[in-house]
Amino acid sequence: MRDLSELLALAEAYEQDLPPAALRLTPPSADALAGWIDHTLLKPEATAEQVKTLCAEAKEHGFATVCINPVYVPLAAGLLADSDVGVCSVISFPLGAHSPDFKAAETRFVIHAGAAEVDMVINIGALKGGDFSLAFEDVEAVVETAHAEGALVKVILENALLTRREKIIACLLCREAGADFVKTSTGFSTSGATMEDVDLMRRVVGPEMGVKAAGGIRHWEDAKRMILAGANRLGASASLTILSEAGQQDVNR
Amino acid sequence: MRDLSELLALAEAYEQDLPPAALRLTPPSADALAGWIDHTLLKPEATAEQVKTLCAEAKEHGFATVCINPVYVPLAAGLLADSDVGVCSVISFPLGAHSPDFKAAETRFVIHAGAAEVDMVINIGALKGGDFSLAFEDVEAVVETAHAEGALVKVILENALLTRREKIIACLLCREAGADFVKTSTGFSTSGATMEDVDLMRRVVGPEMGVKAAGGIRHWEDAKRMILAGANRLGASASLTILSEAGQQDVNR
Repeated sequence: MRDLSELLALAEAYEQDLPPAALRLTPPSADALAGWIDHTLLKPEATAEQVKTLCAEAKEHGFATVCINPVYVPLAAGLLADSDVGVCSVISFPLGAHSPDFKAAETRFVIHAGAAEVDMVINIGALKGGDFSLAFEDVEAVVETAHAEGALVKVILENALLTRREKIIACLLCREAGADFVKTSTGFSTSGATMEDVDLMRRVVGPEMGVKAAGGIRHWEDAKRMILAGANRLGASASLTILSEAGQQDVNR
Repeated sequence: MRDLSELLALAEAYEQDLPPAALRLTPPSADALAGWIDHTLLKPEATAEQVKTLCAEAKEHGFATVCINPVYVPLAAGLLADSDVGVCSVISFPLGAHSPDFKAAETRFVIHAGAAEVDMVINIGALKGGDFSLAFEDVEAVVETAHAEGALVKVILENALLTRREKIIACLLCREAGADFVKTSTGFSTSGATMEDVDLMRRVVGPEMGVKAAGGIRHWEDAKRMILAGANRLGASASLTILSEAGQQDVNR
């Protein structure tokens, strides 16, 4: 990492005055929308049958990935091997309270089992406690492991638990560590994605990185708002509803 | 595992008619109460400073363990090395959706870092989907790993997500796998410990195993009810309140 004090000075400047949004996204047509969505099933009671259904839906509609818990990665990877749908899994989810070594080991484990993308939870306690070096090491360990295997990394900040300053610092740490995306929420905390957070994240990380909005996105209206705010990937369990609403709107146009 | 069909037949019999409670517990005096409690801090935003405070409180009052996330095990183990307070950590927490191999690896990791007890989450999706062999393998993998290192295993069933039949089967699987305790809840689902569940768990596992009640235990009245129902260990974040209320009652007696 470059000098931490430099990064904190930049965070302080951004706290006063966010950089302009250098990327303006337009919501896609209903036909292209599925490619923006991680079709998600992370609830602990999800069964193998439900994961099979999720994978079949993802193939039919062309979702970007299925986003599932680690135990189901081999099943989904087998079912999706002959398709363009990727397998996305989650690391240290949903609490983020593991060491960098352990997060790297979990990353290796799910990638070897067939995941092409991993959504890791940042060390939230380290951010809250001001141990930014540890928060950075954590992201760096996962990014190095995943990139060596050709997989993408999204870093979940869990904005519901962070101050504005902590969100800005987290985005800068993720960019510095070479993460591919920052992601708003796990969907398991007190609140999910907000337009304000997505806008802040997009401004701080700039146009080159990805911003994934997740948590509480249940309708096409929610999805459009998140994309207009700067998200280029969405995580949703209600993906079929969102697609159907988008299709309906195209018909009515 | 003995024949699964034998175990399912026993579960069916218990569903009709639970065995009598063969162990009657009496709530301890205020002085002895701390030894029944895992002093718990599992929220994702917990900082190192808060864990230090937790450990100091545990030493002062003589709690059974501190129950913390994996990232803080080395810190707590260092702080508690010269005390009788154990370090308890959590495995596949709070979703339980990892493979047996991975849960065993996480168990080894936290025990080598200093944990003497591990609270693992059972494969809830496997139970809901009727894949009882997988649910069993999972518990067995963690029990074998932990026992080889001299550590205890508590298996969290997350009762809020289970039917009565699934709770009974889960208890029988845990007993069969040699687990030390069954535990009601993670504290991160839709509800926590209930007297009815603790009673069911105690009846099914019998007098030899432990039953840990956790989730929503905030007062001495809650704690007493759980012990009378059959719990011999409690998990609580509000442990200091509970101790203080118990002490007050002794004074007023």
